[in-house]
Amino acid sequence: MSGHYEAVDGNEAAVRVAYALSEVIAIYPITPSSPMGELADAWAAAGRMNLWGSVPGVVEMQSEGGAAGALHGALTTGSLATTFTSSQGLLLMIPNMYKIAGELTPVVIHVAARSLATHALSIFGDHSDVMAARATGFALLASSSVQEAMDLALVAHASTLESRVPFLHFFDGFRTSHEIQKIEVLDDSDVRALVDEGSVGAHRARGLSPDHPAIRGTAQNPDVFFQAREAANPFYLACPDVVQAAMDRLGARTGRSYQLFDYVGSPEADRIVVMMCSGAGAVEEAVEELNRRGERVGLVKVRLYRPFSARHFLRALPTTARSIAVLDRTKEPGSAGEPLYLDVVAALAEGPDREAAVPGDTRRPRVIGGRYGLASKEFTPAMAAAVFAELLKDRPKNHFTVGIADDVTGTSLAWDRAFTTEPPDTVRAVFYGLGSDGTVGANKNTIKIIAEKTDNFAQGYFVYDSKKSGSMTVSHLRFGTHPIRSTYLIDRADFVACHQESFLETVDVLGLADEKAVFLLNTSAPPQDVWARLPREIQETILAKTIRVFAIDAYGVAQEAGLGGLINTVMQTCFFALSRVLPLEQALAAIKDAIRKTYGRKSEQMVEMNLRAVDATLERLREVPVPAAASSAALPRREPVPMQASDFVRRVLGEI
Amino acid sequence: MSGHYEAVDGNEAAVRVAYALSEVIAIYPITPSSPMGELADAWAAAGRMNLWGSVPGVVEMQSEGGAAGALHGALTTGSLATTFTSSQGLLLMIPNMYKIAGELTPVVIHVAARSLATHALSIFGDHSDVMAARATGFALLASSSVQEAMDLALVAHASTLESRVPFLHFFDGFRTSHEIQKIEVLDDSDVRALVDEGSVGAHRARGLSPDHPAIRGTAQNPDVFFQAREAANPFYLACPDVVQAAMDRLGARTGRSYQLFDYVGSPEADRIVVMMCSGAGAVEEAVEELNRRGERVGLVKVRLYRPFSARHFLRALPTTARSIAVLDRTKEPGSAGEPLYLDVVAALAEGPDREAAVPGDTRRPRVIGGRYGLASKEFTPAMAAAVFAELLKDRPKNHFTVGIADDVTGTSLAWDRAFTTEPPDTVRAVFYGLGSDGTVGANKNTIKIIAEKTDNFAQGYFVYDSKKSGSMTVSHLRFGTHPIRSTYLIDRADFVACHQESFLETVDVLGLADEKAVFLLNTSAPPQDVWARLPREIQETILAKTIRVFAIDAYGVAQEAGLGGLINTVMQTCFFALSRVLPLEQALAAIKDAIRKTYGRKSEQMVEMNLRAVDATLERLREVPVPAAASSAALPRREPVPMQASDFVRRVLGEI
Repeated sequence: MSGHYEAVDGNEAAVRVAYALSEVIAIYPITPSSPMGELADAWAAAGRMNLWGSVPGVVEMQSEGGAAGALHGALTTGSLATTFTSSQGLLLMIPNMYKIAGELTPVVIHVAARSLATHALSIFGDHSDVMAARATGFALLASSSVQEAMDLALVAHASTLESRVPFLHFFDGFRTSHEIQKIEVLDDSDVRALVDEGSVGAHRARGLSPDHPAIRGTAQNPDVFFQAREAANPFYLACPDVVQAAMDRLGARTGRSYQLFDYVGSPEADRIVVMMCSGAGAVEEAVEELNRRGERVGLVKVRLYRPFSARHFLRALPTTARSIAVLDRTKEPGSAGEPLYLDVVAALAEGPDREAAVPGDTRRPRVIGGRYGLASKEFTPAMAAAVFAELLKDRPKNHFTVGIADDVTGTSLAWDRAFTTEPPDTVRAVFYGLGSDGTVGANKNTIKIIAEKTDNFAQGYFVYDSKKSGSMTVSHLRFGTHPIRSTYLIDRADFVACHQESFLETVDVLGLADEKAVFLLNTSAPPQDVWARLPREIQETILAKTIRVFAIDAYGVAQEAGLGGLINTVMQTCFFALSRVLPLEQALAAIKDAIRKTYGRKSEQMVEMNLRAVDATLERLREVPVPAAASSAALPRREPVPMQASDFVRRVLGEI
Repeated sequence: MSGHYEAVDGNEAAVRVAYALSEVIAIYPITPSSPMGELADAWAAAGRMNLWGSVPGVVEMQSEGGAAGALHGALTTGSLATTFTSSQGLLLMIPNMYKIAGELTPVVIHVAARSLATHALSIFGDHSDVMAARATGFALLASSSVQEAMDLALVAHASTLESRVPFLHFFDGFRTSHEIQKIEVLDDSDVRALVDEGSVGAHRARGLSPDHPAIRGTAQNPDVFFQAREAANPFYLACPDVVQAAMDRLGARTGRSYQLFDYVGSPEADRIVVMMCSGAGAVEEAVEELNRRGERVGLVKVRLYRPFSARHFLRALPTTARSIAVLDRTKEPGSAGEPLYLDVVAALAEGPDREAAVPGDTRRPRVIGGRYGLASKEFTPAMAAAVFAELLKDRPKNHFTVGIADDVTGTSLAWDRAFTTEPPDTVRAVFYGLGSDGTVGANKNTIKIIAEKTDNFAQGYFVYDSKKSGSMTVSHLRFGTHPIRSTYLIDRADFVACHQESFLETVDVLGLADEKAVFLLNTSAPPQDVWARLPREIQETILAKTIRVFAIDAYGVAQEAGLGGLINTVMQTCFFALSRVLPLEQALAAIKDAIRKTYGRKSEQMVEMNLRAVDATLERLREVPVPAAASSAALPRREPVPMQASDFVRRVLGEI
């Protein structure tokens, strides 16, 4: 039990466990799972050892199909093996997954869940890939946060070895895979404590070997295939209890308790949401807020989705539940309903089982299903509140959507954008940068500083678009004294930084600013000229929200310090100077320490230049005087498309 | 409207329609769908034209993944294209299927449904492959017989063009794909009448072309992906009615009426089975028999499984239904229930919709689910009767199996092997042959003769094992005056032929013989010596069932006629001589006619030799005198494994 905290992202959280427990790691890169394979590859190249003191063999194949084949082969010899994938990559693994599961072979595949390409491809997150693999016979274990990505990775590895059911451990692509969180990391002693060496030995002993020849992978005819297929039942029936036992052992060591289905909310809730993965963070915040307001609502977080244990699900559900909304982060056109919805309906319909699980309970809550968050579409506490409001209705929409306005088939729920659950003691900062201008790197550094130097929790999420380098990045950072569960973008920032002045012309950079926020602008203009250069809408927002404005000539400072166009140190220093999440002295010491760590190995000169930039920044950072009214000289923000463009360009592309 | 009958198998029935409606046919062979690709390839090589007077381009790719890619590419240019596959082949098509469906591209993939490889591979039939593709957004249309494989192939092609939803048309591997049935075939005028040329033109007009450039296959970010995904809803909502309209047009032309969900049985049934594909034949026979005995039961045959129209399903279900069993021919270990089961439960749980579909009906029948027929495991009317019996119980088993004895987890239902529904006027004949000895070919020929020369319906099903050439084949032939729906093996044969005497030592060839059956043995022994050479168990069966025994020295006759080891003509002649399904004169004329057709192109000498063999056969066919008791000289049948073998070999392999 470590008691040791670090700021890592979901990919790193999962791969640390996977690496420690593997001898063969078959990889093929696909966004957003690639960092798992890259880290494993880098660690192996550096000679990092697994739990048994050997360096895993990391092998990159020609495709995910090949990676799955290599995995199957390695497992069949009795090796401990793993792989990482997403989206289409997982589709290519499906044929091998049926075989691996059919042969009851322990393995964990870690998946950063991502949309499948349909009308368009998307690199962003939803569960369509995982759901496409739900028939393979793999257990599916869902993590809803970075901490869980590490904890449940270990539960998955421990459980697969004991149950012989292979596991797919998944978490939301980008939202969890790329979110940086300060988490309590597991160390080797935790991993060792959870994994049963006897099961490891049993797996090795089942390996095909010339020393004890056996046959596997045969062909069977109608006479025996069906019987042999059913003979796997006991393994699947035992699996949920195996997983719960692993969760219990983890809980006993770490104090972090998990259930197959975790309930949070009012013990007498009349309305319940059932869902899995990162969206649960937003719903949990909504549940707390609504219960604070006197409602009675709750949330069932599904962790072990396959094998689906109706018994455990029904026990997790309060007997007071009257209506239930099941939220699926996938869409299966033409289906009778999305997958989790169908399972919940069936679990509730199987009356005798429910009565056995909860004696005397014969009521049947009404169940509706909805879709949310496809391709990382934002999902907020306000949307969760809209779902709970829908559940109050006599005839709620079924097969609804939330998070979009569906004006084609009218499936969508409206939500109240004013509904917010941001805790007042959380610091929320948003940074607009240019891909590759150092903004994201500086923010990751800031999180590490706060995570390591303070007792604060920290979260960082970085919105790129799929064009990657060269387009806009928006960094969303939260800091606070409690673990941060807000799995959605910031829309009420205390601090907004615009690292590129040109964004002012096209982007509503203060749209996310809260009342009385601080706005930091990187501009070459002297402070007294800044106001006049701001577009009229920005000026009006500053006045309306009583925003304080600060200016820094970051390119000037960087240039003078010899850093050329690298403004990351300058902007980071401004953030610490203005946000005061740390006392300034302490923050400056930490920044300088980070500079020495980052550049020390490369060149002493780089260290000196950056240290100079820190000091110069503090001298040149200035508050911009804000007059009482917007000035008539300010220009309106540019339209996204020219007014004379065609109807399609204006009404469709312009809106987008 | 043809009014023209032919004996074809399910593969040929489907590919005839697919060929007529395609310009590009991408193929890759996989059992049991290969004959579809092979026929298309052969027809194209022979210059056969499609409906529009061009010869389709048939292209064999490097794998099913390549075939799906070629298909997607051809469709994107506005071509009409199709492909055929099974099992793992379909898995490799899944990534392209998501794209094809996402882009709303009309196409039909014809699938001879086959088991996916899990603990072992199996070349036989179940729905695990089709179910693995159910999330892709393809419509799934199920045929349960050879006639339907042709009719619904056309419905699929017509509907995809009108609805823009791509279709997967499937039927049971082997049971339907390789079953020969006399069916009323569709001709070009039928095909032309069902397909809307306007929709064909619209598809062509959507093709990517340099003449009217458009973009497809883009990448989308979280801002718009979800909305665009939901924009496909109207197409899926409209699809069921489009399919029903195509079925109605087909019905008007042919008199064969289909519904999305076809109900058969008592209009006041209290117990209902819901299922799809060939097993429906066995259930329908059980339903008729049970209703004849005074029960009230029924069957819903699911034809359009995706998009799943709960509205149509609920309308098909009698309001008197009290308990429902949903039979799935697949197993998804760890699921909350098999796919069709979950859908039916959800359809019934969505109360308001049910009330809208059937006003005032607020009852909720109890639903249980079961698995049957994995990897072509036999599924008979007796098993269906066991399911109906289970539905009578207060606490019926849920997630049961039927067709096996599950002594591991106790899921299986017992069934009464004496329950039979074979119509008394059907002739049932079973033939034991050696792979490649001509038995199957002769039987196919026999069916063609009966189908073409008489008003009788005919069915042939051929049990090979996966070792193919060189092992035993068992041919199951039925003939009768009504269409034959018995989608299971014969277990009460009027006629049993053993084409290889050596089988007597190891196989209980008379196990399937009915009382008073005719037994034909190919043996070199003179008739008076035959009895003494029969193993004791065979003798006892002959006496117990009052079986008449006939002997022919087929190898001798063939040798003398100059045919070497080719005994097919000899054995076929014996069958017609003994079974009298046709008057002998007429049968002989037909056999001789078939000989001229088959061999005429090769050599006049072959024709002569075969004609000689026919005549010689009639001279040499003799009845074997049957004494009153088994003779003590007869040997027992050989044990499958030696008695001194190990416990595992005797108790497991021996049983198998």
